[in-house]
Amino acid sequence: MEKTSSTPTMKDVAKEAGVALGTVSKVVNGLPVGESYRIRVEEAISKLNYQVNSYAQGLKANRTHTVALLVPNTYLPFFATLVYHINLALLKRKYKMLLCSTDYDPGLEQEYVAMAQQNKVDGIIGLTYNPALVLDDATPFVAIDRSISARIPCVASDNFAGGQMAAEKLADLGCRNVAFLRIGSSLCNEPNKRKAGFENGCLSRGLTYEMKILNDGEPYEKFEDFLREHMQDGKLSFDGIFCVTDTLAHSVIKMLLSLGLHVPDDVQVIGFDGARHFGDQEYICSTIVQPVPEIAEMCVELLLQENRQAKPPLICLPVAYAYGGTTRE
Amino acid sequence: MEKTSSTPTMKDVAKEAGVALGTVSKVVNGLPVGESYRIRVEEAISKLNYQVNSYAQGLKANRTHTVALLVPNTYLPFFATLVYHINLALLKRKYKMLLCSTDYDPGLEQEYVAMAQQNKVDGIIGLTYNPALVLDDATPFVAIDRSISARIPCVASDNFAGGQMAAEKLADLGCRNVAFLRIGSSLCNEPNKRKAGFENGCLSRGLTYEMKILNDGEPYEKFEDFLREHMQDGKLSFDGIFCVTDTLAHSVIKMLLSLGLHVPDDVQVIGFDGARHFGDQEYICSTIVQPVPEIAEMCVELLLQENRQAKPPLICLPVAYAYGGTTRE
Repeated sequence: MEKTSSTPTMKDVAKEAGVALGTVSKVVNGLPVGESYRIRVEEAISKLNYQVNSYAQGLKANRTHTVALLVPNTYLPFFATLVYHINLALLKRKYKMLLCSTDYDPGLEQEYVAMAQQNKVDGIIGLTYNPALVLDDATPFVAIDRSISARIPCVASDNFAGGQMAAEKLADLGCRNVAFLRIGSSLCNEPNKRKAGFENGCLSRGLTYEMKILNDGEPYEKFEDFLREHMQDGKLSFDGIFCVTDTLAHSVIKMLLSLGLHVPDDVQVIGFDGARHFGDQEYICSTIVQPVPEIAEMCVELLLQENRQAKPPLICLPVAYAYGGTTRE
Repeated sequence: MEKTSSTPTMKDVAKEAGVALGTVSKVVNGLPVGESYRIRVEEAISKLNYQVNSYAQGLKANRTHTVALLVPNTYLPFFATLVYHINLALLKRKYKMLLCSTDYDPGLEQEYVAMAQQNKVDGIIGLTYNPALVLDDATPFVAIDRSISARIPCVASDNFAGGQMAAEKLADLGCRNVAFLRIGSSLCNEPNKRKAGFENGCLSRGLTYEMKILNDGEPYEKFEDFLREHMQDGKLSFDGIFCVTDTLAHSVIKMLLSLGLHVPDDVQVIGFDGARHFGDQEYICSTIVQPVPEIAEMCVELLLQENRQAKPPLICLPVAYAYGGTTRE
């Protein structure tokens, strides 16, 4: 049997075209590559009579060109922006999006997973807080903010770096004694790293700090009690506060005002997420901005990529500080 | 041939069950009715051996149990809330939602209309500003905010009543000389009725008023020029302003502050929509609240209803005033 008659592989196509394996993968999957690369790959495919091996693909050959997105809701600004950018990234690739606002309903989430397993959708992008989610490794799934298993890629902001950035920024702005306020999931997820990053930043910059961490369901009023306990003669002992989300920062700023404190003159506040007034106007507070368009692109890229084996288990994308009026700059 | 052997109609079922035609329709379409009604209808269906006539249904017999939603984007608070509530209303009825953030792209809108015509989705709920949208009357479509044709139902807030309510509220709060600021579509749509309602309210309550209406694309700065032209010795000649949306109100309030004016002491401002901080917290400004959950329910009800002939061309749902800090109460 002549060598040329053996079944050509994607590697052979890459070699023939003189391009990287990833470029062949992109062309085969209809993802954008430079026009000259596309032509070279298509010529090599044609010359070698290469047949796309559907089995090697993470996505099934019998594609629906539909992807499901699971998010808790669409009215929280971070989720609303995420839905928007994931929708754009899918539409750009001629994929349709099934949206499921789960309202944290694990039954609904499981139902969409079943759809993916039955090939009714090509895959799922999911921001889920459901610790009991049953998901086999063969289900095309990209998680946001929470690692589900080593075989399911997780895309998130670099939350650790974001926490550290908040501490360093407060130090740069002249703070010496800061607080970290958090309410949230006891579930092990990526946003929880904001705390460790913040501590790290405080230690490296010599800031003294205190933490007040509430569990899910505990009322925000406990933060007001905490702040009150740290006041003496109308003065707060903290000159900087890092809140785990912009939503919390917004509430804490109202509390500070009601305690007679001025933001940013008496105390500077940094939130996390990058929420904007009306979705696209000015920032609601000074904040660590999550790169939502990049998170969306990455989720869609990873989900639609051919070779699931090669997918990294965790991708953390860079965050940035933005001034929003609640710090000195 | 005996009468009982002729094909029974839905009317016969209604007569047999002693219920209204609409009740039979609901039962047939799996929509909620009182349990006793459901039992009576099901008994009548069984007794008469009634067969659901799929052709008479607006929706095709070969259902996908999927509905497409077209919205310009999901990051504007009104759209984000609408997406959330329509998603809830569909999931409650075991329908899935294909979301398309159109970014005002008419090609994308037309593509989803084609999907409905090819029965790839059961119908469309669309908030579209595309005057060229091609839509035959047989396409299951429910429009939000814009009447597309007499055969396509349109669901909206009662925008006229909302405009009138804003004028009356400003009068109740002591205003005598008010302004109406609008930027927006020249397209004939429901929100445009806010202007006529406001004028009506001003006239009925003896308010003097001025209007400043910008076209799409004109910069917000023109409103600042308008306000400046109406100032003398640091005083604004208006004591009340109605802005056509909360987004505009938010910008106008910033302009007023930069002109050295206090809200609500010097001038009271009312917006329209009912946008809340972080989607579910306090109102961003005093506002006329659109009944988004009710709009969502009505759209889904109408789309999934059996008899399209009987659908009303325009449904206007009641709005309400909410205090949000930019008026005296």
